[in-house]
Amino acid sequence: MTKNKKVNAAILIIGNEILSGRTQDTNTSTIALWLNSIGIKVSEVRVIPDIENIIIETVNHLRKANDYVFTTGGIGPTHDDITAQSISKAFKLKYEIHKGAFKILESYYKIGEFNEGRQKMVWMPKNSKLIINPTSGAPGFNVKNVFCLPGVPSILKSMLGGLKNEIVGGKPILSHTISLKTVESEIANSLSNVQDLNDEIEIGSYPFFKAGKLGVSIVIRSEDQSKIDKCTTEILEFVNKKNIQIVNR
Amino acid sequence: MTKNKKVNAAILIIGNEILSGRTQDTNTSTIALWLNSIGIKVSEVRVIPDIENIIIETVNHLRKANDYVFTTGGIGPTHDDITAQSISKAFKLKYEIHKGAFKILESYYKIGEFNEGRQKMVWMPKNSKLIINPTSGAPGFNVKNVFCLPGVPSILKSMLGGLKNEIVGGKPILSHTISLKTVESEIANSLSNVQDLNDEIEIGSYPFFKAGKLGVSIVIRSEDQSKIDKCTTEILEFVNKKNIQIVNR
Repeated sequence: MTKNKKVNAAILIIGNEILSGRTQDTNTSTIALWLNSIGIKVSEVRVIPDIENIIIETVNHLRKANDYVFTTGGIGPTHDDITAQSISKAFKLKYEIHKGAFKILESYYKIGEFNEGRQKMVWMPKNSKLIINPTSGAPGFNVKNVFCLPGVPSILKSMLGGLKNEIVGGKPILSHTISLKTVESEIANSLSNVQDLNDEIEIGSYPFFKAGKLGVSIVIRSEDQSKIDKCTTEILEFVNKKNIQIVNR
Repeated sequence: MTKNKKVNAAILIIGNEILSGRTQDTNTSTIALWLNSIGIKVSEVRVIPDIENIIIETVNHLRKANDYVFTTGGIGPTHDDITAQSISKAFKLKYEIHKGAFKILESYYKIGEFNEGRQKMVWMPKNSKLIINPTSGAPGFNVKNVFCLPGVPSILKSMLGGLKNEIVGGKPILSHTISLKTVESEIANSLSNVQDLNDEIEIGSYPFFKAGKLGVSIVIRSEDQSKIDKCTTEILEFVNKKNIQIVNR
């Protein structure tokens, strides 16, 4: 892949705890921000339960439709951790002990502590590449364009950095935010005109209510800084004409 | 639908701001907790961009696969708010001014303030049922089993209560959490045995790191309290045998 190609990824959150609402997912935003910084755009996110055939089906769909897939969750030692065996089936690969992972965990734990429960975490699809875990030992794994990460946000975060060399991104996606003291309906038409004039640019409009203050953030996203600058100028033009107060730009 | 049928729903988050990681989605958890309380289980969540054909395709898939679909986002006045027109196309319904919504917003705004931008928010699929918005006027809408809500979390929250009579749930999904001062690998096998003995029950195991403390929360979910109680007893049995400290139960 060259640096000019558009590269996209899907995020697959595996876990009943997100679907039940008990746990608030934060991994999507962590992964998406990191991917953006290396020039990869997230095309879709799915949250699915810990059910084998659903994982298999969804992974097989997403890996064909995207350059990369990042899964989170289901790689721990308990009975509801079924990501590794499901990914093995999705790729029709043997689910087996990964010698490298075994070595890592054997030396990570004190003698006698590397018990049967923990050993479950070294079972992976045959020939997986490990994703090193600097926080808690147990590695994630990578098969072709699918990267399997843990669900615990702090551990996941610590593992992303190590992936940088495994993944080829495009041009970094740049963004610029203009925050205004106004309401969306006040700027809707003018903003729509700017969007029409710049159809390759993604312009988003997001109302905010912060500390009793009402406003709108306009977010301009593109790989091309000069296009962002052009859009910004056009937006500020109507903002000034309308005498709208700029909170931040 | 009877109170004994299992009822499921999908949540569809529409918005580039979630995919870019700029905004952390919290609506999934809000909607899921509320649905659980009225006996509806969330089967899947998808996050998709503000792109018409993707919205149409995804809504059409989800509404056939689920009893209910809840969408969030894209119903404001700006150019990137395209949920209502996309849902119209998904259902092959005319996209038109909703008289009831027009009346609501006309009386909500001061004279002269119900401008063109705001009027966009009364365009909906023909014959939509309105979802009343007690916070900021502009209503959501409902077509068949699809309910379209705004993206702003506080507004969305304020609108859910009014939906209760529109939606028929099943038995409320009950849950019980046991928090232990242990690590997952210590209880993995015993917990797996309890799961095998109670295959209709959903048992989840979730490590936590709070205020420097390491632990595991076991979450037992079922419509049947007696089954949850049975599971709880069986779990506490091995917990006591292993001398594991109970943080919370």
